[in-house]
Amino acid sequence: LSHSNLNPNRTSPLSLARAFSSATDPIRATLFPGDGIGPEIAESVKQVFRAAEVPIEWEEHYVGDQIDPRTQSFLTWESLESVRRNGVGLKGPMATPIGKGHRSLNLTLRKELNLYANVRPCYSLPGYKTRYDNVNLITIRENTEGEYSGLEHQVVRGVVESLKIITRQASLRVAEYAFHYAKTHGRERVSAIHKANIMQKTDGLFLKCCREVAEKYPEITYEEVVIDNCCMMLVKNPALFDVLVMPNLYGDIISDLCAGLVGGLGLTPSCNIGEGGIALAEAVHGSAPDIAGKNLANPTALLLSAVSMLHHLNLHDKADRIQDAILKTIAEGNHRTADLGGSSTTTDFTKAICDHL
Amino acid sequence: LSHSNLNPNRTSPLSLARAFSSATDPIRATLFPGDGIGPEIAESVKQVFRAAEVPIEWEEHYVGDQIDPRTQSFLTWESLESVRRNGVGLKGPMATPIGKGHRSLNLTLRKELNLYANVRPCYSLPGYKTRYDNVNLITIRENTEGEYSGLEHQVVRGVVESLKIITRQASLRVAEYAFHYAKTHGRERVSAIHKANIMQKTDGLFLKCCREVAEKYPEITYEEVVIDNCCMMLVKNPALFDVLVMPNLYGDIISDLCAGLVGGLGLTPSCNIGEGGIALAEAVHGSAPDIAGKNLANPTALLLSAVSMLHHLNLHDKADRIQDAILKTIAEGNHRTADLGGSSTTTDFTKAICDHL
Ligand SMILES: CC(C)[C@H](C(=O)O)[C@@H](O)C(=O)O
Ligand SMILES: CC(C)[C@H](C(=O)O)[C@@H](O)C(=O)O
Repeated sequence: LSHSNLNPNRTSPLSLARAFSSATDPIRATLFPGDGIGPEIAESVKQVFRAAEVPIEWEEHYVGDQIDPRTQSFLTWESLESVRRNGVGLKGPMATPIGKGHRSLNLTLRKELNLYANVRPCYSLPGYKTRYDNVNLITIRENTEGEYSGLEHQVVRGVVESLKIITRQASLRVAEYAFHYAKTHGRERVSAIHKANIMQKTDGLFLKCCREVAEKYPEITYEEVVIDNCCMMLVKNPALFDVLVMPNLYGDIISDLCAGLVGGLGLTPSCNIGEGGIALAEAVHGSAPDIAGKNLANPTALLLSAVSMLHHLNLHDKADRIQDAILKTIAEGNHRTADLGGSSTTTDFTKAICDHL
Repeated sequence: LSHSNLNPNRTSPLSLARAFSSATDPIRATLFPGDGIGPEIAESVKQVFRAAEVPIEWEEHYVGDQIDPRTQSFLTWESLESVRRNGVGLKGPMATPIGKGHRSLNLTLRKELNLYANVRPCYSLPGYKTRYDNVNLITIRENTEGEYSGLEHQVVRGVVESLKIITRQASLRVAEYAFHYAKTHGRERVSAIHKANIMQKTDGLFLKCCREVAEKYPEITYEEVVIDNCCMMLVKNPALFDVLVMPNLYGDIISDLCAGLVGGLGLTPSCNIGEGGIALAEAVHGSAPDIAGKNLANPTALLLSAVSMLHHLNLHDKADRIQDAILKTIAEGNHRTADLGGSSTTTDFTKAICDHL
């Protein structure tokens, strides 16, 4: 597995804009450490970035303790403004507090920042054995509509319905992103995942948009795979897939399935792409309140997400160096956290990574 | 893996009714051989049943070549009447012919026969190696509503929607079936799979119904698992699950995923349960037109589905003998069809099974 194959150069609109500012100015990026183990794994990222001399200045924002009426959630308007202003951010796990009258933090972020594509690279970590070798695929999930419309109602007692909405605009946008990603990352194939044999109009429109975009990328092989069959193929032979693009719920399901193939959400990065070149990288695992504050958490998912943020900023050298150090540390095996079968603390593991830099 | 654990005794309403007819009368059962490889694998079932002296008389029905206006599909009304009359049937793969103005054959069957629960046992076949050992779970899928409502429309150009419908009646019915199944099959745990964190009303109602039923079965452990997490857990450690019950689309996805864990749809049985004790067992794999008529098809999925039909008829001894013979033949490994890495023909494999009876 070549690391550069996982993250070859790619020019993002944001970093083109940045070319006009001075190259030595530090870059401001928003950091949401999140809840539970969030602050510890965020600390790990900060240490690794310092050790690698990444020219980033963090602007930290915490989840509030009161509902902000402008976001209808515990996320404050100021924290969203910070991401909008900086264009990039990194987010730890956020446990949506239970209660009435507010929106989920994840959904608020996606909605307010118009984070239309969720990109999750999923590859076997060298030296970390699972049932699968050589997994190397990317799931690209439409992140704004579909089954997540929030439109539900009770028709009569005992009969409820929810609306799945698919639009041409959002489908074209995510399809464009997927093909562009494939092309600029040396990928060969895009598979659109759907259930258009049942949802002919909604998933049918999604496929139609993918086909339209596919025509503009004759060098990329395009195929369509029904979601049930896709899941069977993924568990039998994930090497059949390269880049997968799909509506919201299928992306939610398949990205977790794929993470499971290589060890789980604690090891896989995620990055959300929004209009205007915004990128919000995030660890998608939970906040693990049971081990919070105990220096036991594995920061890998957040670190690799931070790496994807660096690529987005065109800081490819830094990104590659950090990724190499993370993968080497895991591969060596003597500094693994408990979730990977080791007995290292978060700080030990982080130090081992820094030593590899 | 004890086979009787997979299929312990269970009394179905249908077989209670049959107790009033003479024990020596042959039982009539409908057979849809289906398309492609269907006739060959159906022939295999007939041979094995003859060899095991199963007292069944088949009533064969083929998919028609014209749309029957009463079913709006290529399935004739007479063929549906046959299943209704007999109460049991076995179905091979049916390739829905492409064209306008008719319903899918599978959906027609589910709708017309009110097949509300799709039951798919999924277990590792002794001696047939996959990445997973000791898988032994059952997926029970609501089969009549949810995302399969067929209600879709275009709101304005470029914006389409589809309706997911969840009813209390169908949710209770499938939950009842799942818990009853668990109890009568010596299973310990039922997991309801959902996405109620997003679809609070629809999946929320499904969960509410499962909880209501769970209260009546205090001896069965009940848990709720979000579908994305479920898929990750399934690929990491399928032994965490026992009986899974879920709305239609999740069942479609997860049952295929689970089949993939043990080798694919060519090896896993399926049975649809309808109101009034109707059972339509089926092979859910495709019709494989490329190898049709070449004596290469693997009849295992249809044979194991036929076994589940026998259990439904309370012919447990016959069912167990046949299942043992199938599993032994696969375990020995010298009579495997090409899909399992062997070079046997359908007839060789079938003969080997008959020799084990
Ligand atoms: C927490 C939940 C709302 C979220 C989702 O369903 O999108 C999560 O599963 C994810 O994938 O980010
Ligand atoms: C062929 C298709 C309509 C069907 C479904 O989606 O239910 C199939 O995938 C199944 O699981 O039986």
